[in-house]
Amino acid sequence: MSLALKGSNYAGLLERHRIHTKNVEHVVDSLRNERIEVRLVKRREYNEETVRWADAVISAGGDGTMLLAASKVFDKFKPVIGVNTDPERSEGHLCLPVRYTHAFPEALQKLYRGEFRWQWRQRIRLYLEGTGINPTPVDLHEQQLSQEQHSRAHINERFQDQRSDISGPHLLPVRALNEVFIGESLSSRENFKSCKPSFKFSLHRASYYEISVDDGPWEKQKSSGLNVCTGTGSKAWSYNINKVAHQAVEEILKIAKKHGSLNMPLNTELVQKVTNDYNESLLYSPEEPKMFFSIREPIVNRVFSSSRQRGFSSKVCVRSRCWDACMVVDGGTSFEFNDGAIASIMIDTEDALCTVLLEE
Amino acid sequence: MSLALKGSNYAGLLERHRIHTKNVEHVVDSLRNERIEVRLVKRREYNEETVRWADAVISAGGDGTMLLAASKVFDKFKPVIGVNTDPERSEGHLCLPVRYTHAFPEALQKLYRGEFRWQWRQRIRLYLEGTGINPTPVDLHEQQLSQEQHSRAHINERFQDQRSDISGPHLLPVRALNEVFIGESLSSRENFKSCKPSFKFSLHRASYYEISVDDGPWEKQKSSGLNVCTGTGSKAWSYNINKVAHQAVEEILKIAKKHGSLNMPLNTELVQKVTNDYNESLLYSPEEPKMFFSIREPIVNRVFSSSRQRGFSSKVCVRSRCWDACMVVDGGTSFEFNDGAIASIMIDTEDALCTVLLEE
Repeated sequence: MSLALKGSNYAGLLERHRIHTKNVEHVVDSLRNERIEVRLVKRREYNEETVRWADAVISAGGDGTMLLAASKVFDKFKPVIGVNTDPERSEGHLCLPVRYTHAFPEALQKLYRGEFRWQWRQRIRLYLEGTGINPTPVDLHEQQLSQEQHSRAHINERFQDQRSDISGPHLLPVRALNEVFIGESLSSRENFKSCKPSFKFSLHRASYYEISVDDGPWEKQKSSGLNVCTGTGSKAWSYNINKVAHQAVEEILKIAKKHGSLNMPLNTELVQKVTNDYNESLLYSPEEPKMFFSIREPIVNRVFSSSRQRGFSSKVCVRSRCWDACMVVDGGTSFEFNDGAIASIMIDTEDALCTVLLEE
Repeated sequence: MSLALKGSNYAGLLERHRIHTKNVEHVVDSLRNERIEVRLVKRREYNEETVRWADAVISAGGDGTMLLAASKVFDKFKPVIGVNTDPERSEGHLCLPVRYTHAFPEALQKLYRGEFRWQWRQRIRLYLEGTGINPTPVDLHEQQLSQEQHSRAHINERFQDQRSDISGPHLLPVRALNEVFIGESLSSRENFKSCKPSFKFSLHRASYYEISVDDGPWEKQKSSGLNVCTGTGSKAWSYNINKVAHQAVEEILKIAKKHGSLNMPLNTELVQKVTNDYNESLLYSPEEPKMFFSIREPIVNRVFSSSRQRGFSSKVCVRSRCWDACMVVDGGTSFEFNDGAIASIMIDTEDALCTVLLEE
């Protein structure tokens, strides 16, 4: 009810939930009609035991649900398939084409007849080392959904295997399907116990860190954060950070023309072509085992420089000089990354996520 | 001591504090030598009563201190002068040239001899209206420094004058010297009372809002936030959001060349010229009574479009469709800005900040 009071489209939310539920039923019925055993689990019940039980995982939701589904799958031969049950709200980049949402038996038929190919989406792994690190992941979606206390967010079986060698780099128990983002975050402080629920604060603080790309020399940087993505993630947040606007390309070409460098008329068509080509060059195949790093709003002055603000790489190392920063994986899991911590970021093809591409 | 354990340069921090203190003493002594009465107040003691007492205000610190000093001055004839006592760490854009830091009597002499001119830095005012708004400002610097409870952050005398007409737009008791930033923030939730002090989370969430520029048609947008700045602020965060990298200009010109549009060789010199010209065009005089709005990482798809991602304007209106957003003024004061709230943003020359430009 508080949503209605705020003016949100509460009725709209209810309707989308109804549509989602109907779409989920369609998928489940289609599977059971083929005598496939289905366990339907909600977000909070979805865990590694469920994944172990399954031969394949189908996420029913949008791209966010697909990220969540993938986050518990570490077996490169366990297919994860996304069905977009919320096409109004989600682009569904990670899901099957939206027509299968209402015609799922067609998708099943294609799978039976082999009218598909396997697609391995490369993922990023993270090593963390250094003084005072805290390799315990915090599940951001749990914070959003459950509003429970966070003791369980700090328990992670997979990590405990690594505790034996405290001094060496810890392999974190996550694999990024879209990206790892490193930047200053905001803290919730203990003394705000009695704060009014509406209290919030946001402070844009620059992130300080040092970065080494492909074992190159360390470079000090100050920016609004560092994004390292996969081919899958190259069309997600990374794309929004790096894409160029028609308006900006037009101004750049106008200036080039002023310097006598343009011999074609500067028309909308040319600007559009150049804009599109540039933005397309930011995208690459999810199956390529390479990462794309980009620095968000680099701050360049006497102290800090950026020789390269973005590019492809096999390995990125970052030393935090941050006060209160995080590494955030796929917008869903967060690790402290403060002064003294060193992260090594790379792709290992063993970590790939198995999905399917249906023939059209 | 916890700083030393984290690996920060604690000795460096102490040294900068020593330098700052010495520089402040120099300024105070210079003033008292001229028989000027000086009240030296620390950040937390600085308030509107102090400003009322003074004929002029001198901030001793970096640009952040200058923003704080300006934030309590609403009289357009009360000069505010910044002395950069931390030149190693602050660019000092808002302060006197750094040589006066150690030669303040020279600055005073110029003031006495009239070897200066007044400079009025235009500032932005904000009106807030709509359902469920909370016009109480939260002082972000207080959160950082005092770690006290926030009851005093919610008391604001100036605002109480406006309470009489609840239904009309409220003029907020702040004036932005650099910029207003609107975007989704992070919440500290009441139930996290017993969280470990190290608990933090950061979730990059897109901001939804509708925007109308210069009373134009409303446009739905989704982005990483909206920045509206002054001429002063055009060289601050706005500059970092909008500046283009040499690397990006090079790629754009390469693509234009590929389309047969470049008749000059594509060399570093040309790229540098175009890059510099473009970036310079983002800056304008602090005295111009116009605002520059820019959308950070706009998300463009079927639903959301951005006809213009940045430009000059006299008035910007924003309707929040956000879940948990803020309007942040000069990185220091924050207002809730959630679904149902409408902000009107503009410059009124009555709000200008009086500073001085010394002749060189």
